[in-house]
Amino acid sequence: MPNTNLHNYILGEWTPHDGDGFPQYDAVTGELIATCSSEGLDYAAIMDYARRVGGPNLRKMTFLERGLMLKKLALHLHGIRKKYYPLSYRTGATKGDSWIDIDGGIGTLFAYASLRRQFPDKPFHVDGEAIGLSKEGTFIGHHIMVPKHGVAVHINAFNFPIWGMLEKVSVNLLAGVPAVVKPSEITSFLTEAIVRDMLASGILPEGALQLVCGKGHGILDTLGPQDVATFTGSAATGRKLKALPNLIEHAVPFNMEADSLNAAILGPDAVPGTPTFDLFIKEVRREMTVKAGQKCTAIRRIIVPENLLEDVQLALSAQLQQTTIGSPIAEGVRMGALVSRDQLGVLRQRIAELARDAEIVYGSPDEVAVIGADAEKGAFCQPVLLLNDDPLNKTAAHHIEAFGPVSTLMPYRELDEAIALANSGKGSLVSTVATADEQVATAYVMGAAAYHGRILILNEESAKESTGHGSPMPMLVHGGPGRAGGGEEMGGVRGVKHYLQRTAIQGHPTMIGAVTGQYQVGGAYKEKVAHPFQQYFEDLEIGETLITARHTVTETDIVNFANVSGDHFYAHVDETSLEGTIFERRVAHGYYLLSKAAGLFVDGRKGPVLLNYGIESFRFTKPVYPGATIGVRFTCKEKTRQEKKEETDVRKGIVKWLVDVYDETGETVAIGTILTMVKTREQ
Amino acid sequence: MPNTNLHNYILGEWTPHDGDGFPQYDAVTGELIATCSSEGLDYAAIMDYARRVGGPNLRKMTFLERGLMLKKLALHLHGIRKKYYPLSYRTGATKGDSWIDIDGGIGTLFAYASLRRQFPDKPFHVDGEAIGLSKEGTFIGHHIMVPKHGVAVHINAFNFPIWGMLEKVSVNLLAGVPAVVKPSEITSFLTEAIVRDMLASGILPEGALQLVCGKGHGILDTLGPQDVATFTGSAATGRKLKALPNLIEHAVPFNMEADSLNAAILGPDAVPGTPTFDLFIKEVRREMTVKAGQKCTAIRRIIVPENLLEDVQLALSAQLQQTTIGSPIAEGVRMGALVSRDQLGVLRQRIAELARDAEIVYGSPDEVAVIGADAEKGAFCQPVLLLNDDPLNKTAAHHIEAFGPVSTLMPYRELDEAIALANSGKGSLVSTVATADEQVATAYVMGAAAYHGRILILNEESAKESTGHGSPMPMLVHGGPGRAGGGEEMGGVRGVKHYLQRTAIQGHPTMIGAVTGQYQVGGAYKEKVAHPFQQYFEDLEIGETLITARHTVTETDIVNFANVSGDHFYAHVDETSLEGTIFERRVAHGYYLLSKAAGLFVDGRKGPVLLNYGIESFRFTKPVYPGATIGVRFTCKEKTRQEKKEETDVRKGIVKWLVDVYDETGETVAIGTILTMVKTREQ
Repeated sequence: MPNTNLHNYILGEWTPHDGDGFPQYDAVTGELIATCSSEGLDYAAIMDYARRVGGPNLRKMTFLERGLMLKKLALHLHGIRKKYYPLSYRTGATKGDSWIDIDGGIGTLFAYASLRRQFPDKPFHVDGEAIGLSKEGTFIGHHIMVPKHGVAVHINAFNFPIWGMLEKVSVNLLAGVPAVVKPSEITSFLTEAIVRDMLASGILPEGALQLVCGKGHGILDTLGPQDVATFTGSAATGRKLKALPNLIEHAVPFNMEADSLNAAILGPDAVPGTPTFDLFIKEVRREMTVKAGQKCTAIRRIIVPENLLEDVQLALSAQLQQTTIGSPIAEGVRMGALVSRDQLGVLRQRIAELARDAEIVYGSPDEVAVIGADAEKGAFCQPVLLLNDDPLNKTAAHHIEAFGPVSTLMPYRELDEAIALANSGKGSLVSTVATADEQVATAYVMGAAAYHGRILILNEESAKESTGHGSPMPMLVHGGPGRAGGGEEMGGVRGVKHYLQRTAIQGHPTMIGAVTGQYQVGGAYKEKVAHPFQQYFEDLEIGETLITARHTVTETDIVNFANVSGDHFYAHVDETSLEGTIFERRVAHGYYLLSKAAGLFVDGRKGPVLLNYGIESFRFTKPVYPGATIGVRFTCKEKTRQEKKEETDVRKGIVKWLVDVYDETGETVAIGTILTMVKTREQ
Repeated sequence: MPNTNLHNYILGEWTPHDGDGFPQYDAVTGELIATCSSEGLDYAAIMDYARRVGGPNLRKMTFLERGLMLKKLALHLHGIRKKYYPLSYRTGATKGDSWIDIDGGIGTLFAYASLRRQFPDKPFHVDGEAIGLSKEGTFIGHHIMVPKHGVAVHINAFNFPIWGMLEKVSVNLLAGVPAVVKPSEITSFLTEAIVRDMLASGILPEGALQLVCGKGHGILDTLGPQDVATFTGSAATGRKLKALPNLIEHAVPFNMEADSLNAAILGPDAVPGTPTFDLFIKEVRREMTVKAGQKCTAIRRIIVPENLLEDVQLALSAQLQQTTIGSPIAEGVRMGALVSRDQLGVLRQRIAELARDAEIVYGSPDEVAVIGADAEKGAFCQPVLLLNDDPLNKTAAHHIEAFGPVSTLMPYRELDEAIALANSGKGSLVSTVATADEQVATAYVMGAAAYHGRILILNEESAKESTGHGSPMPMLVHGGPGRAGGGEEMGGVRGVKHYLQRTAIQGHPTMIGAVTGQYQVGGAYKEKVAHPFQQYFEDLEIGETLITARHTVTETDIVNFANVSGDHFYAHVDETSLEGTIFERRVAHGYYLLSKAAGLFVDGRKGPVLLNYGIESFRFTKPVYPGATIGVRFTCKEKTRQEKKEETDVRKGIVKWLVDVYDETGETVAIGTILTMVKTREQ
């Protein structure tokens, strides 16, 4: 530890805390590690600093630049990640648990860094397609998403001091919004350690990140209309914060992710002896014991066919038997300690409440044998399995959460009953159905999806590579309805949008094109003397248009194209086959139109165009018969600079072109967007 | 009016209200129209009925079916829309105002009906693309969105009794969620009239729609984790409701759309004499007087260059002078009455508050000349224009809303100051910038977007077809941050998602494909004897795959393709040009690969395939040189039934095919999705 007075990082400086502080203890030995406090902090000044300094610094960067910043940060942390493990062990986490927190957190940072490619190389995002709002096409609408001008305040839980912070700040930083992070005061010593390295690296701009290590009382009180609050932790605390008057008054988005009564369902097909049965037992055991069950996603309810109840109980008990408990650094230990003896006390209380509706069939909350530690000093607890034989009527397990290695087994008769039981948790973060039967999986998902933020379908085909019931993934949403808080985090691009304001913009296509940097149909064309294929990336202008020469389509063209491609679809080659079709005569191939359009717009001379990258979309809107004359309007629609993979790479970008193929009547016969890769002038 | 005791439609029946009820008066004559009340209503039973009866009825329909239901309803209402006008006049609305409410509401219903084509022909929606979660590709993730199992409760404002109801129920009904609508008790007589016709038409399934005409006290108290509440009205009431304990406890989404201090900015380029200046004056006049200024989107703040302040004041006053006021049915009347004399009292109060920071430069709150009505009996008010000469320091106009024909004019020096003033409303529904200068428009949008839910760029090019500052459009989001409530309505597909639960699903591609009805890369192939082009729509199976014959690409192919297409891009035809490119030799055209792939997968015999519809996307992933041998895996990816436009049309659907072109090493060289139109067996 750098010191025993855990500093807060505020207003650009590491600042020791005032007062005695809150004591942080080693979960294994009970030793005092540090003290932390937020006494006397001026939250108004902290938020103002983020908004005034951090926001503008981040907003002047493009998404691409912010993503590269995250990548640099992730690489830096990846290089030094081993140093956090010893500190993580002091939270009670084993090496495996710590990997989830440390490597998992840095992995999320990498994942969000890579999302930069899904955003434009601009400070803002263009959302969806433009929308026509008029007959003549002179008035259209579109949506842009700009970074909010406020600060993101993250209140996190004690269980993942690193991942919990990184999974949130990666998102707001990519969005262009600064953060104030308040980890749990129980384990903020670990968050503080990594934040020191993040800030010392100099990779983040000033004001982008501040850290409050102590308790959070009052931290949301000065938030206003441009700010965002997120909360991970107990439902009770979350609800209290969500109703804070200033959050309500200023419509501050409050994204809440609360512990929930997650369920695992054994499919009726997954009888003992099947791989699915074994996988189910293994998954449940893992979710009960990883991080000593202190995961918001842990399996709290085990819902199995009533005729398999005993098999599951026996198999699971046998597996739990192998859970050696003790100091994370002791050889052979598979489960560490709870985070604190206070938490152990709360857990015992909850188990007692659960036991009113169920019988403890494995383990005991009061006895535990440990390796390499003193059971009286550390916060150790055995896995505890309860059995509730009438879960439709005895409902404690559906609303009481024991935040530790504790789960309740319960029977179901028909799949519908299993779904009803899963759903009676009134909203959870995740549920698992173990089945090899597509119909069981489909029925479960359709019946349960409205109540669960994530559903894992577990079977042999995917088990080897499965990331498991308990792991939220950066590209999937994390959160759930109702009891789980109603929030939604991560989910790839979706998470970033929580920090952006979506604004509809309306006007003439030329104006909307100018604002968004995307050419819109109906916008003014700019004709140039130079052929677009002879221009470097920087020189291409949005709206720049080549009006090509024209070509009269002949029967010969169609026959030749059929021969070169081998596409002898009846409508192109068999003139006797057209009855009942929409075609009056032999029709040109759609792919011929696309190919011929290229023949018209391509300039053969070597120039900055490096290659044909692909087609974004293409539609064939009117049949073209021999005798029709086609031409192309070829318009520069959008440009996205590409980063170099290697230092020696050619510097380049992707250019989107609107290809509008029209016939002699002026009507469009085919339209779409193609992509080319174009060299930049500056290398 | 059908009766003077306004019935509520609850539990499948029109039910007279208990007690004396709340009296509803004609805004023009002051006559009593009806009474309404929600006294004694059992909200728990009402919500339960919606969840138990309406929800399942809607959820068993697909999006396509729900959309067709909305279309039928819209057509029905469109046919009888004229009958609502006389009733609408009694709210004080003119014919033009009533058109917005009645025809605008039915138009929104049509717009949401047409959105059915953007959803699958399934009860649920598949959101975004699948996500790889493993190296070998045996474990992937995806997102589905299913209708929530609850009820949508809409609390609406008095100003648009029909549009306000329809713009919300079109969305929840398309989503598959039933609604309970509570219009304002001041004008619910008009909502009741149209709801009677909606229900009598028999188009909606039982339980899909209930109506409470009286006050809403307690209506949200029994909502739970699967429900959604929306609110349109005053910020003060909205905030109170948002903080209701049961909404907080169950994380009930609360979508709020509150009146805001919307601004219009005159660009520095738009000097008197320009068309933009004239358009600006006209737009402001319109927004002040339409619906007597009782619109949540009305322009409350007029922000103009300080050197143009006098010009604007004169021009606007001259325009306002032409606002003849009176009974909506009297000839020549351009502005009707406020909704009630109570509202008139409130309005006068607000004007007095605004006048502490500003001077009234046009109109008077206390005097009004009216046509065809008694000024003492109706709720009439003149337009009132205030002038605030120091809007950075005198801030009433930035936070006090006078909900009537009232607006405050204020000067700015630089564009940045105009942006700061616009943003000091702390979040609004809409702002307008009038400019013909792309740079002014871009600077304004980038500076102001975070504070405004919608921005209109007004100029001559789009003015003729512009839908105007005040009109929310179904395909654009409606709502704004901060003071405007932080909600988001409509926005096309976006609005529908508010009533769906997004759930991440994880598993093997075969399993995810089975659940979503979309083939996923890595999923099991199903090979059949019959060629896919010889099968009807119904007979095609998701995952059905044709492994084609192969073809060795030759120099002749490339030359022939260059000749047929005319595409002589250097990399295909000039072997001396390849230095500095990624190509080692003459390379095949991307479009050749696509065309040749078609040659390999197409069956020429006439069958159920009607035509090539287009390309969803295509990427060229590896150069193909002469000598390479290509083959195609052609897999049925997704099917969407199409509705008939005419009775005589062929019944058909669109089939998406995954086209995976690989070479002799097994590596993919091009991959994408194409679309065909396929006949159904049953006609």
